[in-house]
Amino acid sequence: MPAQQILQPNPPADPSLLPDSILEYGVQLNTKDYLPEDELKAVQLFRKAADYIAAAMIFLNDNVLLENDITHDHIKPRLLGHWGTCPGLVMIYAHLNRIIRKTGLDALYVVGPGHGAPAILSCLWLEDSLSTFLPEYTRDYAGLKKLISRFSAPGGFPSHINAETPGAIHEGGELGYALSVSFGAVMDNPDLVVACIVGDGEAETGPTATAWHGIKYIDPAESGAVIPILHVNGFKISERTIFGVMDDKEIIALFTGYGYQVRIISDLPNLDNDIAASMEWALAEVKKIQQAARSGNPIVKPRWPMLVLRTPKGLSGPKIVHGEYVEGSFRAHQVPLPLSKTSAEELHDLQVWLSSYKPQELFSKEGVPNDAILSVVPEVNAKKLGQRKESYAAYVPLITPEWKDLGVAKGTQESCMKTVGKFLKEVVVQNPKTFRIFSPDELVSNKLDAVFDVTGRDFQWDIASRAQGGRVVEILSEHTCQGMLQGYTLTGRTGLFPSYEAFLGIVHTMMVQYSKFTKMAVETTWRQPCGSLNYIETSTWTRQEHNGFSHQNPSFIGAVLNLKPRFARVIMST
Amino acid sequence: MPAQQILQPNPPADPSLLPDSILEYGVQLNTKDYLPEDELKAVQLFRKAADYIAAAMIFLNDNVLLENDITHDHIKPRLLGHWGTCPGLVMIYAHLNRIIRKTGLDALYVVGPGHGAPAILSCLWLEDSLSTFLPEYTRDYAGLKKLISRFSAPGGFPSHINAETPGAIHEGGELGYALSVSFGAVMDNPDLVVACIVGDGEAETGPTATAWHGIKYIDPAESGAVIPILHVNGFKISERTIFGVMDDKEIIALFTGYGYQVRIISDLPNLDNDIAASMEWALAEVKKIQQAARSGNPIVKPRWPMLVLRTPKGLSGPKIVHGEYVEGSFRAHQVPLPLSKTSAEELHDLQVWLSSYKPQELFSKEGVPNDAILSVVPEVNAKKLGQRKESYAAYVPLITPEWKDLGVAKGTQESCMKTVGKFLKEVVVQNPKTFRIFSPDELVSNKLDAVFDVTGRDFQWDIASRAQGGRVVEILSEHTCQGMLQGYTLTGRTGLFPSYEAFLGIVHTMMVQYSKFTKMAVETTWRQPCGSLNYIETSTWTRQEHNGFSHQNPSFIGAVLNLKPRFARVIMST
Repeated sequence: MPAQQILQPNPPADPSLLPDSILEYGVQLNTKDYLPEDELKAVQLFRKAADYIAAAMIFLNDNVLLENDITHDHIKPRLLGHWGTCPGLVMIYAHLNRIIRKTGLDALYVVGPGHGAPAILSCLWLEDSLSTFLPEYTRDYAGLKKLISRFSAPGGFPSHINAETPGAIHEGGELGYALSVSFGAVMDNPDLVVACIVGDGEAETGPTATAWHGIKYIDPAESGAVIPILHVNGFKISERTIFGVMDDKEIIALFTGYGYQVRIISDLPNLDNDIAASMEWALAEVKKIQQAARSGNPIVKPRWPMLVLRTPKGLSGPKIVHGEYVEGSFRAHQVPLPLSKTSAEELHDLQVWLSSYKPQELFSKEGVPNDAILSVVPEVNAKKLGQRKESYAAYVPLITPEWKDLGVAKGTQESCMKTVGKFLKEVVVQNPKTFRIFSPDELVSNKLDAVFDVTGRDFQWDIASRAQGGRVVEILSEHTCQGMLQGYTLTGRTGLFPSYEAFLGIVHTMMVQYSKFTKMAVETTWRQPCGSLNYIETSTWTRQEHNGFSHQNPSFIGAVLNLKPRFARVIMST
Repeated sequence: MPAQQILQPNPPADPSLLPDSILEYGVQLNTKDYLPEDELKAVQLFRKAADYIAAAMIFLNDNVLLENDITHDHIKPRLLGHWGTCPGLVMIYAHLNRIIRKTGLDALYVVGPGHGAPAILSCLWLEDSLSTFLPEYTRDYAGLKKLISRFSAPGGFPSHINAETPGAIHEGGELGYALSVSFGAVMDNPDLVVACIVGDGEAETGPTATAWHGIKYIDPAESGAVIPILHVNGFKISERTIFGVMDDKEIIALFTGYGYQVRIISDLPNLDNDIAASMEWALAEVKKIQQAARSGNPIVKPRWPMLVLRTPKGLSGPKIVHGEYVEGSFRAHQVPLPLSKTSAEELHDLQVWLSSYKPQELFSKEGVPNDAILSVVPEVNAKKLGQRKESYAAYVPLITPEWKDLGVAKGTQESCMKTVGKFLKEVVVQNPKTFRIFSPDELVSNKLDAVFDVTGRDFQWDIASRAQGGRVVEILSEHTCQGMLQGYTLTGRTGLFPSYEAFLGIVHTMMVQYSKFTKMAVETTWRQPCGSLNYIETSTWTRQEHNGFSHQNPSFIGAVLNLKPRFARVIMST
């Protein structure tokens, strides 16, 4: 690109979009936006039902609708799954359902918080998506009993989301990547919205802290939208979180700086009205941005919406146990009544807690959720969060050009990376909407710049160089590149991650974690094949006269070779 | 801690410290803060001299003071080192020197940007710190010639900062950790100020993006201060940076959200006045915060200062080459005249460029810098950035308690982690100012909470739980924990990093990178022993009934075992 373009100063954001007063960003709930009474009631009942099931999954191995008083025998021998995050995960699920049912929104839900599987599984059961893929989990008493009693026991679901969870495109366990995965998933999926919930624990990780910049790589004309939801419940296992000690002004300033419009949901007495209005606001803002771009008048630095959900930890759980606060404190993080198998007092507290949801009013004796609850579930199966094709259908294989045309005679001094660049250029041409390159070091430094003959960078904030349909994301964050690559791949497309050998090791645990997902995906009967993650290691140990000792670390190949051959291949070339 | 304390709402920041208008944060340069003419002149000459030497190091193997016109023979066969970042690194070095000389400030300089060693080495030579440790690099013609001609050649310095660089406590190469290392270095060093320069490339990494939160773990009563300087020169190798496309308002909003007071340095015609006034402002703000805390009236959420240095990339380098802009563009990033060994045009441009510094006015024929330049250098050797004891003196070994007192009988069911916790409690008691624990998962989850009997968390923003002298940093960022541990260790103290086995792998490349530093440190004659990095791996593969498949990855031990036994030990226990 010509020098004068590069040197042209970048226009500032439209001043009307960035007023001086940071307080103005806090969009407030207006009573005129309250839900109609029946919708409000229905969404609250859905939440109650899901919260109940989630709590029951942690504790009960029998008596799953509280047909009798709970006894110690009804309690599982080992209590797993984390309660604290569940009510928040359910809130977002319930409200996404309401909007999908009402508007036909195409949405995926990516869940960051760890050990929150009970929340998601209970919603999947309520919408009857479990039985679609796993027929034994019927939406009746028998299915509910299996779901609850087998959870976190051999043969049942684990306590974190994995490939066995319908609708999931992200492995639980190692925190920090939900947001970058979400950005990858919406790329080249113009109608898709990914609601991504990030816990305030996960938000402390570096990978998440830089993934917020992901909006700067989303072209609203060709890609869908991520609506990030930072769930600030304030506590980790035994301590406040960083975001838990930040006040609204600080949070608004921070995310305004990243480029977002921020809306904080914290009106507890009107929580469901607040969530509903906030989500509708966010979707309306997304539509504005997309419509502008798609009608040929893209907004400079569009200010995408984000939500901050401030709710007490473990809302609706036990209030006080052994005289100490639980709901709204770190004690709600894991299992709030850890001794209920043996302690009469905790067993009593559990009875009071679970009874408070009044399961007999939520479900028939046959275990079927009542009509109000079902009125929140999307009518069309393919629209349900648990049944989206993007999350499990087979990938679109790449059209690969004839490589022999690029062959060079043995003994010539042609750069192998330059030649690979020419090949990739053809791949881009032949796969204009299903192939992307995610690159932390810049293509030019890796000599793959032939690609720029036919495409550009997708860096939307660089007005001088952004390209319509640019296939190349260059961000100096290996974690963001890897997360985007994962999200793009697991939704049926193909990506490439070229990097210096030494710096691929930065994401080796992410790569291993992803491989666990694909291993379990292969073991399900219903997940169809997806593409591989593709890496090119450059500047390897055979090429060290240039960068030297500080740039040496061949460990990434070692990590790949530790995987089973079905899941990994290493091809060496000189 | 009692529940009522935990639930107590966290007080918001003092409103007078956080006005509504984000624009107010932009502290402006005032002409009354201009430097006296002679100081201004001296600091500018120091910069000229250092820029000249840095540029010469990249290109010349002879004729190092331009005694003759440059010929192709004077050019190195391979041109290494990155010019683009050098002028900015020199600016900060020069102005730190001015302040140290004037006020006796105790400072270290931690340098994030990669391949910028020429800038730092030239300043070290100017202040005559090189010859203190490496006698051949005398501050005369012979020493200068060695410095310039040997750079990035066998036997000379590499292009990134490493353990052979006096004053350095951070290995170059893998980007992202300068800031967290700096926070670790100031802990329990109440009089120390670390100026940490972060490039706008490095600022895109996740580890840096969350390390900005580090101020929340600095107790101004017991620890020193980090002054972060984000150097926004706008470009990477071939593309703008994220911070390069953000306008001042966005940058101010972002860092205000992190909790900083932000001052942007961008008055190019008065650049040295602006840097000088901004640094003095920052140091005055640091002093206010420290004095309040040390007089027993700590400020709630003190708003530490940070600087943003916006300058054209490669300032003072070639303006236009082959008709294309270089200074202020990505073309200044690496070597701006890469063909000067063979191209007559580029050789001519190099002659014009290097002559523009007028080396004959900066140095005597004997290679001695002129008096004005030397007037910027600190008079006391121990105050020079290259000769600070913290960066190379021997560590203070831990006083270790008698472990046998904590022995339990073989066959008992005592938790080994609980027992380790009791031991660590004693370590804390006996080493109140030289031992810290950096923990991403929380001590309670790793059963080390006996430590809390005698100390607390150092989370300054959590008013309810922060403890004077708290020895425990809990932040859900393995990268930040590792960086702080490195900075704390390399400045002579000892730390511990307990973590789930699977998540230690997140920092395995950092650990390897650090080991390169210590390997080279041992090979110098002047770096004295420092403590080891100490990890406890918990929740290992033998303990998987709890967290399961998603929490398995034993690769960190493998990475440690790949190191030479002199640098690593693994001790197994059950």
